[in-house]
Amino acid sequence: MLELYSQNLENAVNEIAKLPGIGKRTALRLALHLLKTPSEDVTLLTDRINKLKTHVCYCSKCFNVSDQDICGICSNPKRDATTICVVQDIRDVIAIENTNRYEGVYHVLGGVISPMDGIGIHQLKLQELFDRVKNNEVKELILALPATVEGDTTNFYIYKNVKDDVALVSTIARGIGVGEELEYADEATLGRSLMTRVDFDKAYKK
Amino acid sequence: MLELYSQNLENAVNEIAKLPGIGKRTALRLALHLLKTPSEDVTLLTDRINKLKTHVCYCSKCFNVSDQDICGICSNPKRDATTICVVQDIRDVIAIENTNRYEGVYHVLGGVISPMDGIGIHQLKLQELFDRVKNNEVKELILALPATVEGDTTNFYIYKNVKDDVALVSTIARGIGVGEELEYADEATLGRSLMTRVDFDKAYKK
Repeated sequence: MLELYSQNLENAVNEIAKLPGIGKRTALRLALHLLKTPSEDVTLLTDRINKLKTHVCYCSKCFNVSDQDICGICSNPKRDATTICVVQDIRDVIAIENTNRYEGVYHVLGGVISPMDGIGIHQLKLQELFDRVKNNEVKELILALPATVEGDTTNFYIYKNVKDDVALVSTIARGIGVGEELEYADEATLGRSLMTRVDFDKAYKK
Repeated sequence: MLELYSQNLENAVNEIAKLPGIGKRTALRLALHLLKTPSEDVTLLTDRINKLKTHVCYCSKCFNVSDQDICGICSNPKRDATTICVVQDIRDVIAIENTNRYEGVYHVLGGVISPMDGIGIHQLKLQELFDRVKNNEVKELILALPATVEGDTTNFYIYKNVKDDVALVSTIARGIGVGEELEYADEATLGRSLMTRVDFDKAYKK
């Protein structure tokens, strides 16, 4: 339809609409917005998007995104390199960092084992994790994967492969969210939060 | 937060988040998606966005977007250049074109008079419209602006300025939408659809 007026607009809309969660209508809205935006701002946007591909790499230790070969967390001497938290992707790193409660390092898997989505063990940074715990002194491996069937499967697979190399394998607590009412929690969560109940002293420790 | 790991990722997220309707979280999701996208696809996206600014212009007659000085509608000899439909922006052109019911040409104002949003008569292509109807033979000017206070204000302003130069000034019908129940229509719409009732023969004409 658009190509009647402008093939270039049509082309831009088609490319923008390939982004996840953006349909044709939103793509057109964004393209028309960009048409009205000053050229230097549009160039800045496209330059910075291009730099994503040319300047951003993955940390060769933890596979977090990084501008250098080793990311800012792995190269920080204040972080405890003997504690590794295994997460699905970089958004989980950001979420955990935002809590200000974690001083160790990370290992970003890039997903969880999910045969339904065609994600097997070779698509994930699992072997890299096993090598990492084998070749380094790791006191604790914290599993912080999603509380889904796929997350649990991945947890078990990791546990089986690392248990001889790591002193302690732990998993983040599943339970009632802070500020949440018990009556609205599902049975599985409530049951698990009862079974994995903790010392009162420990729970309120700052 | 992100700059801890990658200043380049942070920069890209900040620019993407400047787009309308896209917050930081969505921008991060899009940036991470682009990180995983093959380089040639990302380059295609940014090239086509850049081309929006370098290759797309506005038609010098109707101010629709165009790759040439005169857009495909204005330059089409089959379109009736003596009928001009005044619309707010290019999305309205697309909507009207999709109906396949209009054979005339357009005039894209670029908005409606809205002092609250800082849009006065000089931000819109109003003088260009008045010049156009003065210097060309225009048999009918169709006002197809939004049915809002701002749209009505703009309608009245246009009518006042063109009524001596145009044989007929019309406005698209306001009324009950096709497939809509009367009981759910608001009073203003229902009242207006009664006042501007049309000949049965005319209404069902193909």
